[in-house]
Amino acid sequence: MNNINRNEKKISKAVIRRLPRYFRYLRELIRNDIMRISSRELSEKMNITASQIRQDLNNFGGFGQQGYGYNVKSLYSEISHILGVDSGITCIIVGMGNIGKALVNNPLFEKRGIKITGLFDSDPNVIGTNYNHLTVSDVCEMETFCQNNSVDIAVIAIPKQSANETVKLLASAGVRGFWNFSNAEINNAEDNNIFVENVHLGDSLMALCYDVCSKKSEGNQ
Amino acid sequence: MNNINRNEKKISKAVIRRLPRYFRYLRELIRNDIMRISSRELSEKMNITASQIRQDLNNFGGFGQQGYGYNVKSLYSEISHILGVDSGITCIIVGMGNIGKALVNNPLFEKRGIKITGLFDSDPNVIGTNYNHLTVSDVCEMETFCQNNSVDIAVIAIPKQSANETVKLLASAGVRGFWNFSNAEINNAEDNNIFVENVHLGDSLMALCYDVCSKKSEGNQ
Repeated sequence: MNNINRNEKKISKAVIRRLPRYFRYLRELIRNDIMRISSRELSEKMNITASQIRQDLNNFGGFGQQGYGYNVKSLYSEISHILGVDSGITCIIVGMGNIGKALVNNPLFEKRGIKITGLFDSDPNVIGTNYNHLTVSDVCEMETFCQNNSVDIAVIAIPKQSANETVKLLASAGVRGFWNFSNAEINNAEDNNIFVENVHLGDSLMALCYDVCSKKSEGNQ
Repeated sequence: MNNINRNEKKISKAVIRRLPRYFRYLRELIRNDIMRISSRELSEKMNITASQIRQDLNNFGGFGQQGYGYNVKSLYSEISHILGVDSGITCIIVGMGNIGKALVNNPLFEKRGIKITGLFDSDPNVIGTNYNHLTVSDVCEMETFCQNNSVDIAVIAIPKQSANETVKLLASAGVRGFWNFSNAEINNAEDNNIFVENVHLGDSLMALCYDVCSKKSEGNQ
């Protein structure tokens, strides 16, 4: 991965969390040939207050100009840079079940300049099969692979039971980021050299169930 | 869907967002035969402050008892009830590409008592195939299906281009909840009778990239 020169200024976690959204909206604007936008217009599109947008984007220096608005391309390129897009991040997928298969063919890695370099599974029927020009290897070979190749992120798409153990093994082999789709809660409390993003799809589904049920019971009153 | 008697008290959106996490942790405790827990212990497990936990759970009345802690089973059952688990929610999946296929076999619906009742796609090669005892139907039949059967939630796993149009069609056929995996931002601004959960997997991946890149550039300094 290339070295990245970042702004000296520390950007808060909350702002970082919102950056991917700006990234998506700005990409959409570029696709539609919109090259400048005011914070008010961006606010309407994104459903964030204009003042929040100004505050967020002020973190990266003076991209907004009174009466002109934001230069969409420079803002997009700055945000991409901060987020590490196209900085040569490499990734492996551990577990080629349904989620692993859905991810290996998903353009979301390529769109962000992330290269998938390895696929691993423990099932003899799955080992040796091909996805997206890659052959699934035996999980036994995973540690050596990570030691010999620089791997930045591992997608954890295996059952809950083996998730924490696998993360420990990979962390000791130099992997720093874990995108966790197993139902296990992985935290980096024991190892502050690693970063974990837990994706709990069920939580989002349940929040939706709550809303739907509320509506339904309202209707029944 | 059954009628649900909810507490009179309005629970804040922020608390609702945290409930699925409590739900997961409590289920885990029950599985491990732990029948009572103090807010301090729960706090250590969940990485939320004990005072936040007490505040959250106080919303549902006095389940915690000084010196005893929380009764895990009643808390779990109350939270399940509030979230609408096992209240007969029905769901269809629109789009049987990689994401649709990964979801149809995923136990996360069944675990929450949600029944998948229909699968739809527009590809003639996909229509007529079977997943999880269901046959994929033509999207053309979707509207009639929703009018004739009570459908609470639609999983939107189709390309971005047709997402908003599909949501409008389904909303007019009575669907209230949308679990959106398409990259389109769907909002309910125009129709406050519907609820949308946008799942932007890429946003979570990018936040992880940021962390990994920061670590890397730190190491290079």
